[in-house]
Amino acid sequence: MPVVNIRLARRAIPTTAEEKAALIRGVTRVMVEVLNKRPESVVVIIDEVEAENWGEGGEPVPVLRARRERAKESNAS
Amino acid sequence: MPVVNIRLARRAIPTTAEEKAALIRGVTRVMVEVLNKRPESVVVIIDEVEAENWGEGGEPVPVLRARRERAKESNAS
Amino acid sequence: MPVVNIRLARRAIPTTAEEKAALIRGVTRVMVEVLNKRPESVVVIIDEVEAENWGEGGEPVPVLRARRERAKESNAS
Amino acid sequence: MPVVNIRLARRAIPTTAEEKAALIRGVTRVMVEVLNKRPESVVVIIDEVEAENWGEGGEPVPVLRARRERAKESNAS
Amino acid sequence: MPVVNIRLARRAIPTTAEEKAALIRGVTRVMVEVLNKRPESVVVIIDEVEAENWGEGGEPVPVLRARRERAKESNAS
Amino acid sequence: MPVVNIRLARRAIPTTAEEKAALIRGVTRVMVEVLNKRPESVVVIIDEVEAENWGEGGEPVPVLRARRERAKESNAS
Repeated sequence: MPVVNIRLARRAIPTTAEEKAALIRGVTRVMVEVLNKRPESVVVIIDEVEAENWGEGGEPVPVLRARRERAKESNAS
Repeated sequence: MPVVNIRLARRAIPTTAEEKAALIRGVTRVMVEVLNKRPESVVVIIDEVEAENWGEGGEPVPVLRARRERAKESNAS
Repeated sequence: MPVVNIRLARRAIPTTAEEKAALIRGVTRVMVEVLNKRPESVVVIIDEVEAENWGEGGEPVPVLRARRERAKESNAS
Repeated sequence: MPVVNIRLARRAIPTTAEEKAALIRGVTRVMVEVLNKRPESVVVIIDEVEAENWGEGGEPVPVLRARRERAKESNAS
Repeated sequence: MPVVNIRLARRAIPTTAEEKAALIRGVTRVMVEVLNKRPESVVVIIDEVEAENWGEGGEPVPVLRARRERAKESNAS
Repeated sequence: MPVVNIRLARRAIPTTAEEKAALIRGVTRVMVEVLNKRPESVVVIIDEVEAENWGEGGEPVPVLRARRERAKESNAS
């Protein structure tokens, strides 16, 4: 009974129920194909984490995203 | 200092504060009785996960629950 | 940067490096296809847990496996 | 690419975005200084857990906090 | 299908298979009694963590244990 | 009582007990300075994960490391 936990920083456009269902279906299929697990034995848990609670490179995601946006804009101008 | 993490799919009727207190009390008692831990050293963390973020058998919990409900209804009729 | 944690009870025949690589490749592809993530942003961590440290239905996995083996044998005889 | 997960019981005064940024910055610096990791490789995820979902000593945090408050008040009087 | 993860610092005398089975049995029973879960739906995963990988009060467990031992000895003498 | 979990891919040169103690000390100090926590309330758990169990960009760490080594060598020649 594998347990798979997917952790994601919440995005501006929230992950839809359809996308979550596709994650659950896709990851379960990988467990079945690679490890020959029965699908009904696979548990998938998705955690969407507030963007300000997620950091990379020492900075919260909203700061990182704002910088990337500014970089795109100055490239475009 | 054991750390126990309980993860649950959120149900239609939310878990009450009393049920959470009973989970914390019960799990702590198990740690004390089996491993001889001091109760004040036991940490219990409960995560209630949105039902659409929890999958089993490749499907999100709301899909599974709806199917079980339909099965019950057709058995009852 | 999604982080995916796969937890598995260790089996009699250990999971091979090739199977682990296939899990990592497959789960990363799901994140890319469903959420449009860049592959290099996906982290996958596999935990193989000792069978006696994993329980289902109130019993450790070695007890469950032994019972299933006996059931198979008595069915076969 | 170290992944650091900080779990906290939610307090009466919520953790501010500035405090979360300081946690992310501080923990990332520790990973860089001690293990010589590149900062951009460090992921930090903060989980704020509802106080009634967190237990210590067999009791939920709101019960513990109320008792401490009463103890302070009777000491002060 | 609740998933319960018990994390423990490894002790000098290792946790026995019987103790692990008792943890699994006891925690599963709590989930059944408090939340009315079916026992076969409960997963329990025990992680024994090397003592030097576990810290409290800013110090690794082996340092804490050595100090407690010295305190006991000086109390006894 | 914050709980901090640090997860790392195991390196060729293993993390020493001194480095682990420095991680525990450093992360605890961050919790004290930023959130005003009592040091004795902070738990830090370090998980060193086998390199072949850790993936990034769809590949296990040993494959990534071998490629980086080859890149360095061809740059040096």
